[in-house]
Amino acid sequence: MDVAIVTVGDELLAGDTQDTNSTWLCGQLTERGVQVRRVTTVPDEIGEIARVVNEYRAEYDAVITTGGLGPTHDDVTMEAVAAAFGREVEPHEGALAWLEEHGGYSADDLVAGTTNLPAGARMLPNEEGVAPGAVVETVYVLPGVPAEMKAMFQLVADEFSGDRTYTTFLTTPQPESELIDLMVTLQETFGVSVGSYPGENVRVKVTARDPETLEDAASWLRERIDVVEGPEVSETA
Amino acid sequence: MDVAIVTVGDELLAGDTQDTNSTWLCGQLTERGVQVRRVTTVPDEIGEIARVVNEYRAEYDAVITTGGLGPTHDDVTMEAVAAAFGREVEPHEGALAWLEEHGGYSADDLVAGTTNLPAGARMLPNEEGVAPGAVVETVYVLPGVPAEMKAMFQLVADEFSGDRTYTTFLTTPQPESELIDLMVTLQETFGVSVGSYPGENVRVKVTARDPETLEDAASWLRERIDVVEGPEVSETA
Repeated sequence: MDVAIVTVGDELLAGDTQDTNSTWLCGQLTERGVQVRRVTTVPDEIGEIARVVNEYRAEYDAVITTGGLGPTHDDVTMEAVAAAFGREVEPHEGALAWLEEHGGYSADDLVAGTTNLPAGARMLPNEEGVAPGAVVETVYVLPGVPAEMKAMFQLVADEFSGDRTYTTFLTTPQPESELIDLMVTLQETFGVSVGSYPGENVRVKVTARDPETLEDAASWLRERIDVVEGPEVSETA
Repeated sequence: MDVAIVTVGDELLAGDTQDTNSTWLCGQLTERGVQVRRVTTVPDEIGEIARVVNEYRAEYDAVITTGGLGPTHDDVTMEAVAAAFGREVEPHEGALAWLEEHGGYSADDLVAGTTNLPAGARMLPNEEGVAPGAVVETVYVLPGVPAEMKAMFQLVADEFSGDRTYTTFLTTPQPESELIDLMVTLQETFGVSVGSYPGENVRVKVTARDPETLEDAASWLRERIDVVEGPEVSETA
């Protein structure tokens, strides 16, 4: 399963806010064996959001958007996703009912448009806030406030799955330039994927389709490089 | 001036690494009056990087890439940018000369390919590392290690400029829902752009083309909302 994430917000593109939502979602999806193929930040503009959502839903199995939900003039993601499907937004009865039952709101308390979702959308309740999310076909529309986004993602997490993989990291003080041939040989010998993340030490990430191959590959590499840490606890996904 | 940023790396899409480079670049560019229109993360794959770079260089005034420079098998950004222009990579004499002079390297010390840049590229020296960056027409290719990226961006920062703008933030404990009409009126009355960033308090960002308009708009708003902080020191860009 291939997924794209679209984060919405002028505050991200201005550098005023650090996007941590997409990193968290990438981790969650990777753990489920889902490949994230794009993370893209777009401005608070209906046309731009709709264009990117449409491009990505044509290409990937699912699209997750975060941000741009709510009552203010720059919250336009619902309208944009509706536009991407050639639909209108309309009041969602289930969204109002949920807010009345769980939030103690009445329709009069809510800013006009709060429960507007793209026509035909599935509503996702916002357990940590007010503005509901939505699912339209393969497009998942989540809030931008991290606590709200995380709670809402849990409601749909089971809809994201892929090939199970097994990953380990080894950390070495050797420079990347000494590891190049070893990493290529490791990849070719064991059919694993290998990444290296430079820093004070170099972290080598090895990912395999089964735990035995991962253990064999990690042992092979451990005999050939200086390891200061790891293999870390084998994360399974 | 409109710019797109492309961050390269499987480690970002796996959620292993938090991308802070693009946020920093967004801040730098915004300060210079440049509009960032897209930030996109792509995998370490030549075809995917080349496709996105080509799409964005056709649409925006400049493209900045970060990441995927270096000697390992997953460092493919230079090849990808070359491919985007239908060029090959080739050893850059100036890059080798710079490393010999400033880094004390000889050609034999360097991993094969270290000084390979797209044919015809302008070389950007890496004052904090080894792998050089490059400029090909409107595409700026920077490293992914933050210290290296920041130092290299300073070498080209003067090539990024746009309309000067003036910004201030006001922080209020009032909920966004109480601010909606005021923000719309503020926008329409003063011709400023207004954004609201929810959190424990709501931060309202006002951006204008001249400092007098900004002061007038901020005063107008300050008289109508409860302000717990701000206007913060007026940031000029």
